[in-house]
Amino acid sequence: MSKYLIRAMILPMTGPDDFYEQGEIAVAGDRIVSVGKIGSAPDDFQPDRIIDLPQDVVMPGLINTHTHAAMTMLRGYADDMSLMPWLEEKVWPFEAKMTAEDMYWGSALALCEMIRSGTTTMVDMYMHEEETAQAVLKAGSRAVLSRGMTGFDPVNASKGLEDNIKLFQTYHHAGEGRIKVFFGPHAPYTCPGEFLQEIKREADKLDAGIHIHVAETKSELDIIKERYGKTPVEWLEEQGLFGGQVIAAHCVYLTSKDMDILKQYGVCVAHNPESNMKLNSGTAPITQLLQRGITVGIGTDGTSSNNDLDMFCEMRSASLQQKLVGSPEDLKAYEVLEMATSGGAKVCGFKDLGKIAPGYKADLISIDFTQPHFYPRFSIPSHLVYSAKGPDVRTVMVDGKLLMEDRKLLTLDEKTICQEVEQRAKKIASTFS
Amino acid sequence: MSKYLIRAMILPMTGPDDFYEQGEIAVAGDRIVSVGKIGSAPDDFQPDRIIDLPQDVVMPGLINTHTHAAMTMLRGYADDMSLMPWLEEKVWPFEAKMTAEDMYWGSALALCEMIRSGTTTMVDMYMHEEETAQAVLKAGSRAVLSRGMTGFDPVNASKGLEDNIKLFQTYHHAGEGRIKVFFGPHAPYTCPGEFLQEIKREADKLDAGIHIHVAETKSELDIIKERYGKTPVEWLEEQGLFGGQVIAAHCVYLTSKDMDILKQYGVCVAHNPESNMKLNSGTAPITQLLQRGITVGIGTDGTSSNNDLDMFCEMRSASLQQKLVGSPEDLKAYEVLEMATSGGAKVCGFKDLGKIAPGYKADLISIDFTQPHFYPRFSIPSHLVYSAKGPDVRTVMVDGKLLMEDRKLLTLDEKTICQEVEQRAKKIASTFS
Repeated sequence: MSKYLIRAMILPMTGPDDFYEQGEIAVAGDRIVSVGKIGSAPDDFQPDRIIDLPQDVVMPGLINTHTHAAMTMLRGYADDMSLMPWLEEKVWPFEAKMTAEDMYWGSALALCEMIRSGTTTMVDMYMHEEETAQAVLKAGSRAVLSRGMTGFDPVNASKGLEDNIKLFQTYHHAGEGRIKVFFGPHAPYTCPGEFLQEIKREADKLDAGIHIHVAETKSELDIIKERYGKTPVEWLEEQGLFGGQVIAAHCVYLTSKDMDILKQYGVCVAHNPESNMKLNSGTAPITQLLQRGITVGIGTDGTSSNNDLDMFCEMRSASLQQKLVGSPEDLKAYEVLEMATSGGAKVCGFKDLGKIAPGYKADLISIDFTQPHFYPRFSIPSHLVYSAKGPDVRTVMVDGKLLMEDRKLLTLDEKTICQEVEQRAKKIASTFS
Repeated sequence: MSKYLIRAMILPMTGPDDFYEQGEIAVAGDRIVSVGKIGSAPDDFQPDRIIDLPQDVVMPGLINTHTHAAMTMLRGYADDMSLMPWLEEKVWPFEAKMTAEDMYWGSALALCEMIRSGTTTMVDMYMHEEETAQAVLKAGSRAVLSRGMTGFDPVNASKGLEDNIKLFQTYHHAGEGRIKVFFGPHAPYTCPGEFLQEIKREADKLDAGIHIHVAETKSELDIIKERYGKTPVEWLEEQGLFGGQVIAAHCVYLTSKDMDILKQYGVCVAHNPESNMKLNSGTAPITQLLQRGITVGIGTDGTSSNNDLDMFCEMRSASLQQKLVGSPEDLKAYEVLEMATSGGAKVCGFKDLGKIAPGYKADLISIDFTQPHFYPRFSIPSHLVYSAKGPDVRTVMVDGKLLMEDRKLLTLDEKTICQEVEQRAKKIASTFS
C-alpha cells in the first residue's frame, strides 16, 4: 500500500468556501486519509513520497457521465452534417466495420485523452464493451460500462442482453472495484417496451444500474409521441424502467411533468452541451433540473459529435449555454464544478467519490496554475471553469495510483495507441472510397 | 534579415483542398517566399536555419478581432452576474482605479496568453492604449489599437479624442508596421451623434479605421430605438460613420435592412460568441452575414466576460453556437478557420496577412499534432476547430521573428508579468473590501 503526501493549493469540493492555499492531502492505498492546511496530516502518517505541487490546484478527478469511448475511431471522419445523413451515411456504416480489437484501441485512445485532460471516471455505452473494460483495466482509471442494446431486431436484442449480462458477470467490480457494469438500452425509440422490461428485470436481479439516452432530439420526442401518445420520460416510467440507479443521457426535451417523474424516481441526468449544440439537438433545461434537486452530471458524448473528451471545455460550454438561454447568473462556476465531480459521482452511484475528504477514494488531479490564463488568482472556481483546458492538467491519480505525472502517461503507451488507431480507422474509411 | 525553412504539415488557408502533408515554407525577413511540398523552396534559397516540425500542423497565426487586452487585470474578479450590476458594481469601479502602468502589465499578460494560444494579431480597444502599444512592441506581435472613447461628458470626450489622435501619431505603423491605430468610439449608446461625426472627420483626415461596439445587447437596441427611432446600424449610417475601414463588434441584434447597410458600406463584423453567451447578450446572425458576403472575424472580447483569450476555444464556440440555433451544417470547420485567419486580416485591413502564400507576412503558428485528441487524422480543419486548444500551440512566428519555440516565450518575461498582475490586481481589489 503506497502512501503519498500531496502538497498544493487544494479545492476539495466539500463546500464553496473550502480552499487551502497551502494545503496537503494524505493518501494511503486507494483512500484519502486527511485534507487540510500544511501540517494537518495525522502525526503518525509516514508517506512513502511527498509530491510537491505548490503552483498547482488539486481537485477531485472529473467524471464524464456519458460517452462512447471507442468512437475516437471516428473523430473528424464526418462533421458539419445533418443528423440523419451523418448517422446513415457515415457513422453506422463505419461502426458496422469496427472489430472488437478496433474497440480496444479506440477506447485506449479515449482513455489517453481523458487522463491527459483530468477525467478519472467515465460512463460509457458501446459495443464490444469487454474490450473497453480491458482498456480501463490497463489504464487504471474508473468506469461505469454498459453494452449499448437496440431491440427491434430480436436476434440483435437477445445477443445484446446476453453480452451485457456476461459483461456484468466478468467485469462488475473488476480492477479492485474500479469498474461498475450497468445495462445499456440505447433509447426509447430503438427499444420496444417488452425489451426494456426484460432488461430491467435482468438488471434488478443483478442489482445493476441502467444507462439510456432519453429525449435527445425533437425528432425522438415526435416519434415516441406518435407511437405511444406519451413523452419519452412518461413512456419509460410506464415500462417500469425507473427506480434504482438510472442515468438518463441528454434529456433535452422535457415537460414539467417529465421533470417531476425524474425527481420522483431519483433518475440522474447526464448533460452533454457540446454534442447537443453541434448536432442542433437543443438546450437541455439544466437550470430547472437543478432547481428541482435532480442530480445532473456532465458528459462529452462520443468524439464523433464533440469532437474531444475535454471535460474542462465541456464545463465551460455547459455554463455558457445555460447563460445564453437563461441569465448570466445561471450555472455559476462552483455549481458546474460540482456537476463534474460530486454530481457525477452521484450519477454513477459512487458514495465515496467526487470530493477530497477523509475516507473518499483518492481520485485526484492537479492543474498547472503557472499559466498566464490563471492570473490574477481572484477565483479558482472561475478559472477552472472559464479559463482552464485539458492540457493544463499536470498530475492524475486514480484509486491512489498515479496515472500521469508532469504530463507523462504512466500506464498507457500513447504513441503506439495513436498509431494503431490511425491505421485501423484509415483502413475502415478506405473501404468506402 | 533572417531566413527560415520550416518543414511541417501545412494548412495554408488558401483554399479548402490546399494541404501539404510533408510541406515546407521559405521565410525571408518578414515575408513568406514560398510554400509547397518539401523541395519546393527556390533552388537559391539559403536558410539560416531549418525548423523541423514533422508532427506539427503549421497554419497562419490567428487574428483576434475584438478584445480589451488589459482587462486580464479583472479575470475572475466578477463572474456569474447580470450585466448592469456586473458593470456598475464591479467592472467600472475597478477600471477607475487602474493606472497607466496597470494597463501595461495587463496588456503584457494578455499578450503572453495570446502568443501561447496562437494569436498573432489582436484588435484592441481600451484606455491608456499607448501602454498596450508598448507591450505589443515588446512582445513582437501585431495589433490594431484604438482608444476607447465615450462622449456624453464633454471633458472626457475631448480627452479621449486627443488621446486617440496622439496614439495614431505616435504608434501608427510602429514596430516595422506591426501596429495600426484605429479610432475607438465605444458604442452608439455612449457617444452622441456630433461626437461620432467629429471622430469620423478626424479618422478620415488620417485615413484611419474605426472600431466600435454595435448592437451588442437587446437593451442597447431598445435605448437607441427610443432615443432616435432607428436601429443602432441605421443611426450610425445616418451619422456618416460607415465607409472606410470599420470594425463593428458584436452585431447581435440586426435587422435585414441593417445587414444590407453593413454590406453596402463594407463594414466588417467582429463576432464574440463566448462573451455573447456568458453575458446572455444573444446569438449573432453570423450564418446570414456570411451568406450576404459580409466579412466576419472572430474575437474573444475582454477576459472579464470570457474569461480567456483562447481563439481555438472561441472558434469552436462560434461554430457550436450557430449550429445550435441553425443547423449542424452551419459554420463548417474550414469556414471558421477562414474567419479566424484571412477573414480577420480583412477585418483589420491587412492585405498581405492571414494566408500562407508567397509575398504574405510570415505570421505562422505550429500546433503539436502528437496529442491523442488529434487522432485519427481524418480532417485537419475539423481537429483544429473541434479538438484543438490554445496550449496545443508549440511555435509562434510574427513578421518572420520567433515569439515562441517549443512552448517557451522568447520576447516576454512571463513569470514577472504574472506576478506583477497578481499584485496590482489584488491591490486594486483590496481597496473595495
